[in-house]
Amino acid sequence: MNHVLILGGDGYLGWPTALRFSKLGYQVTVVDNYFRRSACTQSNSYLLYEVPTLVDRAKKWKELTGLEISVVIADLAVPQNMYSLFQGTANYSFGENYGIPNTVVHYAEQPSAPYSIQNFTNADFTLINNLRVTNNLIWAVKDCAKDAHIIKLGTMGEYGTPDIDIEEGWLEVEHKGRSDKFLFPRQASSLYHTTKIMDTDLLWFAVRTWGIKVTDLMQGPVYGIDTEETKLHPDLRTIFNYDEIFGTVLNRFITQAICKYPLTIYGKGGQTRGYLNINDTLQCLVAACKNPADPGELKIFNQIVETFSVMDLADWVQRVGNQRGHDVTLNSVENPRIEREEHYYNPVYQGLKDMGVDPTFLTEEILNGIFETVEKYSDSVVTETFFTGVTWK
Amino acid sequence: MNHVLILGGDGYLGWPTALRFSKLGYQVTVVDNYFRRSACTQSNSYLLYEVPTLVDRAKKWKELTGLEISVVIADLAVPQNMYSLFQGTANYSFGENYGIPNTVVHYAEQPSAPYSIQNFTNADFTLINNLRVTNNLIWAVKDCAKDAHIIKLGTMGEYGTPDIDIEEGWLEVEHKGRSDKFLFPRQASSLYHTTKIMDTDLLWFAVRTWGIKVTDLMQGPVYGIDTEETKLHPDLRTIFNYDEIFGTVLNRFITQAICKYPLTIYGKGGQTRGYLNINDTLQCLVAACKNPADPGELKIFNQIVETFSVMDLADWVQRVGNQRGHDVTLNSVENPRIEREEHYYNPVYQGLKDMGVDPTFLTEEILNGIFETVEKYSDSVVTETFFTGVTWK
Repeated sequence: MNHVLILGGDGYLGWPTALRFSKLGYQVTVVDNYFRRSACTQSNSYLLYEVPTLVDRAKKWKELTGLEISVVIADLAVPQNMYSLFQGTANYSFGENYGIPNTVVHYAEQPSAPYSIQNFTNADFTLINNLRVTNNLIWAVKDCAKDAHIIKLGTMGEYGTPDIDIEEGWLEVEHKGRSDKFLFPRQASSLYHTTKIMDTDLLWFAVRTWGIKVTDLMQGPVYGIDTEETKLHPDLRTIFNYDEIFGTVLNRFITQAICKYPLTIYGKGGQTRGYLNINDTLQCLVAACKNPADPGELKIFNQIVETFSVMDLADWVQRVGNQRGHDVTLNSVENPRIEREEHYYNPVYQGLKDMGVDPTFLTEEILNGIFETVEKYSDSVVTETFFTGVTWK
Repeated sequence: MNHVLILGGDGYLGWPTALRFSKLGYQVTVVDNYFRRSACTQSNSYLLYEVPTLVDRAKKWKELTGLEISVVIADLAVPQNMYSLFQGTANYSFGENYGIPNTVVHYAEQPSAPYSIQNFTNADFTLINNLRVTNNLIWAVKDCAKDAHIIKLGTMGEYGTPDIDIEEGWLEVEHKGRSDKFLFPRQASSLYHTTKIMDTDLLWFAVRTWGIKVTDLMQGPVYGIDTEETKLHPDLRTIFNYDEIFGTVLNRFITQAICKYPLTIYGKGGQTRGYLNINDTLQCLVAACKNPADPGELKIFNQIVETFSVMDLADWVQRVGNQRGHDVTLNSVENPRIEREEHYYNPVYQGLKDMGVDPTFLTEEILNGIFETVEKYSDSVVTETFFTGVTWK
């Protein structure tokens, strides 16, 4: 049997990833310490709807499908917790111990840029947590499960906004008549994104030195709410944030639209990024799992399907929102971030398509689908969390 | 007055740096937690001779010169210890509180490649200690002393051994008809060196975001023992390691030579690096201090004065050692490291010379000077520490 271990299995993407692999017949174990939920509470950010615990969601999934997802509640920044997953000694809160995993999906990081920069405590936490979890994983795999394939979630934000085309992870450089191939240059615009660059440095060293197998998925901002599996029952829904700290931009705009809160555009809104539907994240993860890296290989893919500027997204949301009777307005605020508002942006994203990923492009139909689900919870939205002005300065 | 704060002031380079700045009339504070000494004891590595504590060396310096170096004993990975140095609340073991520093020299890292890879505990310590100290320093400076100039010790090892010329920190890249300037690509061959790459990522983010002033000195392996100031009295000597874990290669070879222990060559000995006399480290530090970076500027210099292969150094040491009657032999052992043994290596190192550094090239005279000092302690050398075979595999 093929066992997939999902670190950070309670997150926005972790849980739907677990359901997808389970549905496809993999043995699945999710691990989380509910950091995201506690951080939301501490930041006074609310989820759009209440989400049952991992154990309760796993029970519901079993009840509905007969499939069992095992659950371990543990802080993976503690080395022994990480090692125990590869030594068969982890403490299971639900389900069977499936033994040493064949694939490890590593989502277990503090994922918010504003959170990482809000104050020293959060900066220190982000830096140490993210690097320690990655380092613990490297050592546990190298010491106990060298055949396991690590799928690491990187971010397109590692590249920043260079004036040259962004290749998929690597760059062939010619210089003074000689040439060599390097990691594509990375320079990010938040501390969170910088910790992901540091993860890449660490993983690349480990791949070269110990011959472990790693795929790095450089993911753009993800949008969407329902997946084929979460739609089975409201209790299976994934965590959905719409606030300034943890909400991704399109999800936040849609939630603002249904609350008649002007869409918050940072500065000129020319910031262009590559985006991805939550359903395509799942396709990409499955494709990466089926096409593992070789020992000593670091595979890197740019995990996006199309690029938009912030203003493009605001226009889409306004158009669809207005069709649905929401009377949507836009509000340009002084950009709290330090980033370019007008820039060149031309990333390559071909590798995942070559492995069979069928891109889901943003359409009015898809936007309408997200609006429809979010509208059910419009009464619960806490609009003060849309913009509090966490500043980079 | 000009106050220089030296983090890691008990180290091989930290202490001679403190003496040099003090001699030149700067106010100097040294901070250390004696990590290096404890790590040597734990690794069963011995120093060539006993070295008094920082307080006792500062007292001796004052007695001999009338100059006062202030001493703080503190672990800088603890945020409050770092902040206290910039808030005037540090706990002084000796000397005056000179207040907020104008220049901070950051040597306070775990500096050994073999140590960093020896086992999980050391790897975790190296990663977390090095990044936490750097991050604490960034935040303390940004919050409390934004005018302070940070001089960070990087390493030439960050670049690895690329097939193109190594520029001073940056690289102009042309790609598909467009161009941009990036940090020179970095890929190191130890976990320690990888933490220095991560430091660079972090500092570059901080410089761009908060406008702090940073100079990064990409230092090659340093050799030598005496400086103008340490020669004043044996108690002022700096820590000198000759063992596999903490000893740099030329210092180790010289110590092996005087003990009639065959010089340990890793593999073919073609590994080429840029080297530096300890006295030139001091020159470079003073030049960097006198030519600070601007706010929002990251200045990077390659701090080396000439390149040698390991075999070149072994040959020099054999020749001079034999002249001194030591009957020196060479011993090629299987390389415990994962590194290229034959490679292209052509680094640029012009910036520091342009700022007035007058290079000290390796000569027989200089080698004889080092031999002369080390020979005094030949009876105390513990030869088992020369090679224990700490392996990268």
